[in-house]
Amino acid sequence: MKSFHVKPHTSEERQEFYARLEKKNTAPLWESLARLFPNEPTPASVPVLWNYTDDIRPLLLEAGRLITAKEATRRVLVLENPGIKGSSQITESLYAGIQMILPGEIAPTHRHSASAIRFIIEGDGAYTAVDGERTTMHPGDFILTPSWTFHDHGNPSDAPCMWMDGLDFPIVNMLNAAFAEPYPKDLQAVTKKEGDALNRYGANMLPVEFQPERQSSPIFNYPYSRTREALDWLYRNGRGHECHGIKMQYVDPSTGSYPMPAIAAFMQLLPAGFHGKSYRSTDATIYSVVEGRGRTRAGEILFDWKERDIFVVPSWYRTSHEAHTEALLFSFSDRPAQKALGLWREQAPIAPA
Amino acid sequence: MKSFHVKPHTSEERQEFYARLEKKNTAPLWESLARLFPNEPTPASVPVLWNYTDDIRPLLLEAGRLITAKEATRRVLVLENPGIKGSSQITESLYAGIQMILPGEIAPTHRHSASAIRFIIEGDGAYTAVDGERTTMHPGDFILTPSWTFHDHGNPSDAPCMWMDGLDFPIVNMLNAAFAEPYPKDLQAVTKKEGDALNRYGANMLPVEFQPERQSSPIFNYPYSRTREALDWLYRNGRGHECHGIKMQYVDPSTGSYPMPAIAAFMQLLPAGFHGKSYRSTDATIYSVVEGRGRTRAGEILFDWKERDIFVVPSWYRTSHEAHTEALLFSFSDRPAQKALGLWREQAPIAPA
Amino acid sequence: MKSFHVKPHTSEERQEFYARLEKKNTAPLWESLARLFPNEPTPASVPVLWNYTDDIRPLLLEAGRLITAKEATRRVLVLENPGIKGSSQITESLYAGIQMILPGEIAPTHRHSASAIRFIIEGDGAYTAVDGERTTMHPGDFILTPSWTFHDHGNPSDAPCMWMDGLDFPIVNMLNAAFAEPYPKDLQAVTKKEGDALNRYGANMLPVEFQPERQSSPIFNYPYSRTREALDWLYRNGRGHECHGIKMQYVDPSTGSYPMPAIAAFMQLLPAGFHGKSYRSTDATIYSVVEGRGRTRAGEILFDWKERDIFVVPSWYRTSHEAHTEALLFSFSDRPAQKALGLWREQAPIAPA
Amino acid sequence: MKSFHVKPHTSEERQEFYARLEKKNTAPLWESLARLFPNEPTPASVPVLWNYTDDIRPLLLEAGRLITAKEATRRVLVLENPGIKGSSQITESLYAGIQMILPGEIAPTHRHSASAIRFIIEGDGAYTAVDGERTTMHPGDFILTPSWTFHDHGNPSDAPCMWMDGLDFPIVNMLNAAFAEPYPKDLQAVTKKEGDALNRYGANMLPVEFQPERQSSPIFNYPYSRTREALDWLYRNGRGHECHGIKMQYVDPSTGSYPMPAIAAFMQLLPAGFHGKSYRSTDATIYSVVEGRGRTRAGEILFDWKERDIFVVPSWYRTSHEAHTEALLFSFSDRPAQKALGLWREQAPIAPA
Repeated sequence: MKSFHVKPHTSEERQEFYARLEKKNTAPLWESLARLFPNEPTPASVPVLWNYTDDIRPLLLEAGRLITAKEATRRVLVLENPGIKGSSQITESLYAGIQMILPGEIAPTHRHSASAIRFIIEGDGAYTAVDGERTTMHPGDFILTPSWTFHDHGNPSDAPCMWMDGLDFPIVNMLNAAFAEPYPKDLQAVTKKEGDALNRYGANMLPVEFQPERQSSPIFNYPYSRTREALDWLYRNGRGHECHGIKMQYVDPSTGSYPMPAIAAFMQLLPAGFHGKSYRSTDATIYSVVEGRGRTRAGEILFDWKERDIFVVPSWYRTSHEAHTEALLFSFSDRPAQKALGLWREQAPIAPA
Repeated sequence: MKSFHVKPHTSEERQEFYARLEKKNTAPLWESLARLFPNEPTPASVPVLWNYTDDIRPLLLEAGRLITAKEATRRVLVLENPGIKGSSQITESLYAGIQMILPGEIAPTHRHSASAIRFIIEGDGAYTAVDGERTTMHPGDFILTPSWTFHDHGNPSDAPCMWMDGLDFPIVNMLNAAFAEPYPKDLQAVTKKEGDALNRYGANMLPVEFQPERQSSPIFNYPYSRTREALDWLYRNGRGHECHGIKMQYVDPSTGSYPMPAIAAFMQLLPAGFHGKSYRSTDATIYSVVEGRGRTRAGEILFDWKERDIFVVPSWYRTSHEAHTEALLFSFSDRPAQKALGLWREQAPIAPA
Repeated sequence: MKSFHVKPHTSEERQEFYARLEKKNTAPLWESLARLFPNEPTPASVPVLWNYTDDIRPLLLEAGRLITAKEATRRVLVLENPGIKGSSQITESLYAGIQMILPGEIAPTHRHSASAIRFIIEGDGAYTAVDGERTTMHPGDFILTPSWTFHDHGNPSDAPCMWMDGLDFPIVNMLNAAFAEPYPKDLQAVTKKEGDALNRYGANMLPVEFQPERQSSPIFNYPYSRTREALDWLYRNGRGHECHGIKMQYVDPSTGSYPMPAIAAFMQLLPAGFHGKSYRSTDATIYSVVEGRGRTRAGEILFDWKERDIFVVPSWYRTSHEAHTEALLFSFSDRPAQKALGLWREQAPIAPA
Repeated sequence: MKSFHVKPHTSEERQEFYARLEKKNTAPLWESLARLFPNEPTPASVPVLWNYTDDIRPLLLEAGRLITAKEATRRVLVLENPGIKGSSQITESLYAGIQMILPGEIAPTHRHSASAIRFIIEGDGAYTAVDGERTTMHPGDFILTPSWTFHDHGNPSDAPCMWMDGLDFPIVNMLNAAFAEPYPKDLQAVTKKEGDALNRYGANMLPVEFQPERQSSPIFNYPYSRTREALDWLYRNGRGHECHGIKMQYVDPSTGSYPMPAIAAFMQLLPAGFHGKSYRSTDATIYSVVEGRGRTRAGEILFDWKERDIFVVPSWYRTSHEAHTEALLFSFSDRPAQKALGLWREQAPIAPA
């Protein structure tokens, strides 16, 4: 098959020329062209699984003894993809970490351009506050802290709370559009009653003549109970997808679109015994196992996962899922950013060669 | 002023813990938090000016003697920002290079996910072909080769043709959504007459029931004459902007929006004697001087520029322009990508402290 | 004040000319100009109140003895505005009627271009079916039968069911875009389980990669309980509008916009003792009293309304509401059609002269 | 075939009931259902042709002797469809008239909610002014006066100017959203140089960060020369449509969509000898013959038309065009209003039964 580019031969004459190019802040494109224009996505990030119960959780508790939430600002263990070591990222475009807040602690109020999602793994009494409203977080709840909204966390309960953070700061920072500022005080005031956003915007109603103030969902807690119920219904009343099982996306009720401009989030149910067909898509995806046990193949890698595990499948990896028991997987990706730029592709299933 | 994050003190105990974190593909967020969440954009890229006449042009002609367009696939001198050496990029999110095609040469047909713009500096007889139509390129013309369209260049004239390329491959590659393929033959067939797109889509008319096939403009040559005329009109019939002079944006006539999903392009006229006020915006901008002489201040850097020079101003640099003679500046940036993600900010002028 | 147009004087010469104009299918515009271009909306429709309990209900039951639902196709008493007698319409652009279906009856399946809403007044066991799914209707439920979807009604319960229909056929017919067809059989098959749409689309989730098939909401029953709850919340946690009280709009969860292209629907709560300020808007509005007692002033007309009454306020009438007890008003209007055409105006409150 | 509705039998009992219904401002729907829900569009308007040269022009000149433009406010002969006599309309949803302004006259400045188009038939020196800019009108030019913009006409030349007006006031008035007001003086001030809008917005450029102020095109004169050129190009470089020949739509350059919210406008070229296939669409269309001679079949009616004739084809009529010589037809319809409400249908060509 014809090649996109074959790197030209080199010579002393050319090398000397290249050295003079460098002095003028230039470079020969033909020496890099193949690398800059891959035939198909070639991520440096790799598939990784993090064993929450055996590895992450003990390390988090240990971090809890070593540093306070306040001193850390955010006590988080970054899930760093070994394929892009030193980046503090889970893929080239997204960040994920596991945050813990102990009883009595607070993570002080601040805001930043990056959008963030939180997916709750453990704990029932901690809260996230966004723009004056607190929401109590329970396992399986999907929480948002939209770009440039003041947010903080606290834990008035008597047990630790752990969740997965997902942020788009790699994209924001690459565009050099990042701002951040702390709140003048440790904690913003509570100005709205808990449940306000979900009641005000989440009942298939909106306040009359509602004008969104931000490019993100006006609701910031999607409770697991509501999501689980919807998935159960689809499971019992319809056929799932041959690759994805029963899969749904979280939605901004004021637009019907993704909840944040660069981050999409999904919940999927794989029935017991599910053997999904292979698929691939350009949006690398980070999974958090909510319920059940199963196995995912990502390229040559095979992950056996169980409840609370987290794993990442990079862009365009040949992927398929199996579920030994009924399983629920939360996931998120940068699909909205790719769609906004006309770049997203998916083959589900992958057509035979 | 209260700080977003103060890096915690370190200790042997903590360092030992961090080593164990690394083994499990994790890392302590609090060690990187300040770096990942800057208070405001802190690009590593720096303001740079390339002297086309004295530096780039001679080097290009030398490259013309050292390698053929066909062997190079594209004979381009990358404008590499010394602040991000080795990246082959002019800013963290954009690429720019100067391409030359000699009389009789072709640059073979291919396509890729990245969108590209071409801004013509020299030459009157070379062409760019997109999806079966060729367009002859003249200085000041703004040419597009949209994502995934087959394109090539040729020069049937007897003089070299040089132009500035701008591509969004840094964004595409970071999202790991990049595909590329060569055309089966060196050159795609010519299936449409020259001028087709501009006549068909550029006269404030569209074919009845037109459905865009792509997320980019259906016209791919914006001739300088038409643009210059519009700018002249605005100059003689209205007040310019106190920072930007008379500035216009190229538009996709089938949407009224930017010509490509991630790249905006502009042409601005600075009247002789123009002393613009300072401004800053989150979209780093690459300028090509079409006509005239002037000076741009970017942060602490002062550029004296003349015709055909190229310079880059990174994100959020305090910028102001002066024109000694009437001057025309072409420029491009990633403004549409920033707006799609709700990130774009501009202060024009910058309010007094 | 200067006049838009003063009708010219007439003369025998002119009249003779006008007669010749008529023979050529022409007419003198200046004879009609003032009528065709009113200074402000001048509806022929007038404010009307229908006393459901004392007038409509008995007449409906009598109709129930005089004709079957099947013979009538739809057993409906049209609410005809006396200002536009003979039109079968409640305003110039909208239709409303009260439909009754008796135990054991069906209203056969058909479809038409006009969109329809149903607001349930009485009865707990009747159903509406849309595209293979039945939904049981309860008082206060807001039901949609979108344009060109097959729909029918049935009543397997042992009590009559009455509801208000609202349709946009005046708009559809004026545009001469109306199609209609019966289903081959009396009743379409039931292919989905009851509750499917609300579970599938109404939980702030959507099936992954959901593509709407129609320009209307994918959910077709907005239960009163859910709406009442949202309104209660807003009532207890915020200030209502000085004219509208606590007012919310029903929303298409797949767009965040109105549930149908030409019809908006609202529910508003007026606290006991509410004395609203005067307002006016270009969208004539039809109200159905769900709970409570109050009074509405529309121009010079004063309506004392109680539960189950229906009343209409034409376009641009100076309107204000009072509530003697806590009151809930359902309403609908053509606001989306007006907004789509750039025509909607509201003054709430009306600024002092 | 099964019927949508069969009108029930009547009886004395039922008639007496209907009389009591009327007293309570109600009516039996089943007596009107079939009329209100036609199987397919059944316009009362009929196909009509107006012979401009032999009929309209002489009558206009006579009107010119009988009344001044100022006294008439607008000296226009309404093209009134005999199928809807007394409506002052050409179709149920649109208005058309032929306006004449004599040398030295003015048609005073005013504004109204209705949008208007003007298609110039005769004359070269008259102008239309919109929001402070005058544009000189030439035959074949397509002029807009958007909703609520102050507009007026004048004729400083020495020959009369005649043009076809098209307005959407039937839609605006039916929605009862109509406002109108005269300008305080006879003529608004000229604040922009002629050609400003077209230069500023029509060159595939827009002023940087342009925000549309209205829901209509920012350009208000689409010169015939530019449109003719585009059509010629498409004619010589591609195949036309088997029903429509070479047909293009006028476009708002700031959106890529129709130039006004409720009115679409088109120009089509039928090559000499063109024999188009039959088609039908729900948007009734008004044609003005710019060049050439031909014949249009609309249902059972056959029109032989020549230059300057105007004819109307109502909704859903089986239509086909023939051209004896090369012919250019301007046309307009309410297609955008129909599309906004999800109602537009076209069969082109009509599939065999």
